[in-house]
Amino acid sequence: MPKLAFKALLSCAGIAMMLLADSSRAACQTTSATPTAAEAIARIVQATGATLPPNTVDTIKAGDPATPVTGIATTFSPTMEVLRKAVAAGENLIVTHEPTFYNHLDDPAMFIDDPVYKEKLAYIQQHHLVIWRFHDTWHMRRPDGIAEGFVAQSGWKKFQNPGPAGEQGFLFTLPETTLQFLALDLKRRFHARAIRIVGDPAMKVTKVGYVPGAAGEAMQIKALHRDDVQVIVVGEIPEWETILYARDAQLQGRKKALILLGHTLSEEAGMDNCATWLGPLFPGTKIDFIPAGEPYWTPESVPARVPARTSAIHTPVRK
Amino acid sequence: MPKLAFKALLSCAGIAMMLLADSSRAACQTTSATPTAAEAIARIVQATGATLPPNTVDTIKAGDPATPVTGIATTFSPTMEVLRKAVAAGENLIVTHEPTFYNHLDDPAMFIDDPVYKEKLAYIQQHHLVIWRFHDTWHMRRPDGIAEGFVAQSGWKKFQNPGPAGEQGFLFTLPETTLQFLALDLKRRFHARAIRIVGDPAMKVTKVGYVPGAAGEAMQIKALHRDDVQVIVVGEIPEWETILYARDAQLQGRKKALILLGHTLSEEAGMDNCATWLGPLFPGTKIDFIPAGEPYWTPESVPARVPARTSAIHTPVRK
Repeated sequence: MPKLAFKALLSCAGIAMMLLADSSRAACQTTSATPTAAEAIARIVQATGATLPPNTVDTIKAGDPATPVTGIATTFSPTMEVLRKAVAAGENLIVTHEPTFYNHLDDPAMFIDDPVYKEKLAYIQQHHLVIWRFHDTWHMRRPDGIAEGFVAQSGWKKFQNPGPAGEQGFLFTLPETTLQFLALDLKRRFHARAIRIVGDPAMKVTKVGYVPGAAGEAMQIKALHRDDVQVIVVGEIPEWETILYARDAQLQGRKKALILLGHTLSEEAGMDNCATWLGPLFPGTKIDFIPAGEPYWTPESVPARVPARTSAIHTPVRK
Repeated sequence: MPKLAFKALLSCAGIAMMLLADSSRAACQTTSATPTAAEAIARIVQATGATLPPNTVDTIKAGDPATPVTGIATTFSPTMEVLRKAVAAGENLIVTHEPTFYNHLDDPAMFIDDPVYKEKLAYIQQHHLVIWRFHDTWHMRRPDGIAEGFVAQSGWKKFQNPGPAGEQGFLFTLPETTLQFLALDLKRRFHARAIRIVGDPAMKVTKVGYVPGAAGEAMQIKALHRDDVQVIVVGEIPEWETILYARDAQLQGRKKALILLGHTLSEEAGMDNCATWLGPLFPGTKIDFIPAGEPYWTPESVPARVPARTSAIHTPVRK
């Protein structure tokens, strides 16, 4: 590499790291065919139109920011299998929505001598992977990048309520169905093994709110309170929080219900969407969505091989 | 009520409240046929042999401690249905393992104007119920009162590992089976709708650890690390914590797995056990276990009526 180009890259990486550090929206504008991880990350954040919030989790979790990007793999959760598939596909920048190392902040303190952690970290280092979390700013993009993916997979685009940009993709008016058939339809569309429901199966439903991930009880109940919401579709929540609340609401005769799609299935389509969205940002760069898949199975859905749901890499069609 | 007796009750209640407030193990010794709620609670805590820990959640969540106890209902979770069944059974002291008002500390701040909260609180007041949480000290009792109930329902008493008292009821060596059949057996014994498994269905299993409730990732992983544990049976945990960890461990070829029984099913038998245990403490007092039941259903287990699993009150046989 000529000295000047190398210097430009370093400088670019420097800007990118500043961006990551100080939440500035200034970003590296290069469209080099082989950006570094830091350059690529800066370009992604800039494209969201969002500003990195204070204490963002959208940081590099492992790897050298100066690594030239050979390809990008988007995923919901960088399991060992996702990492292996990325390596096999020649992709070394992993753009993940959720943590790599088993807690929200990817704090390794608890795992420093843990064999599972150590083997995963060694694999990342051995293959020169860079793992970057794309959580806050992908949600902050308008429309929310995760919600946009959910809308595509649910088939609810045409039922989306008009409303301010912040609500787009979160509120729907469906053709009348019952809670039971709504759950069955979601199970089918998301290939869900372990969807769980609180509420009266026979309850008539038209108005649905989507509260992805582990948004917390406050956000879930705020959505459930709305007059234009009868059912919330969520990721997960402890059993003594919104789950008990929804149960009591139903037992009091209120027409409210809760569908737990699981954290992964409630958000994973948003990372498939991410791979498609990244295409125009990185012309010439190989980009795939690698599903982590629903993390568990049930006695009714024993996988033929484990994990069965994660076999297909999805290479988005470039537009 | 004669003035003296009333004064004695008040004094007794005073001692009980002091006990709740200052973690003293001094307790009211009365065996009056109609103790107040405060007296009954003091008697229960004393019988555990445990000392209330600092910042214990074992406090009265609603109701007047001076209320004479007409009967005791134990439950895992005081849903509206559990409360109605207790009222129908003439039982006004509700001994619950988990919260009443939708968060760990039963803090009503978020719910003060909430219609579901207000209706539940009004119902409790209208029927002069006293709701007391029996969490910390029931776990601190030796053997752990929750684990003792789990052991009874799982049928694993004869497979319990010998070990220090703190481990009794938590470690088992079962006849060899597979992860799939272990999960099926638990599903059957606990009438579980939504049991979920992480791991290889064909994995051979003999060594099982039980980590009930939402014990947290640290405790769960500590158990999973043990050489004498291949599978942990837990309540619940966020998908990015122990669930991802167990998945990575399996993908690295380690013979480790995770069964999520759900928070309720992992602990509810411990409150059935509690009703039996309370018998000798309250001769002449009506005592029932009222199941809250698994809070959700699945497309494979749509209830005929909702909730179907909570119909049977269990009146323990007095020994």
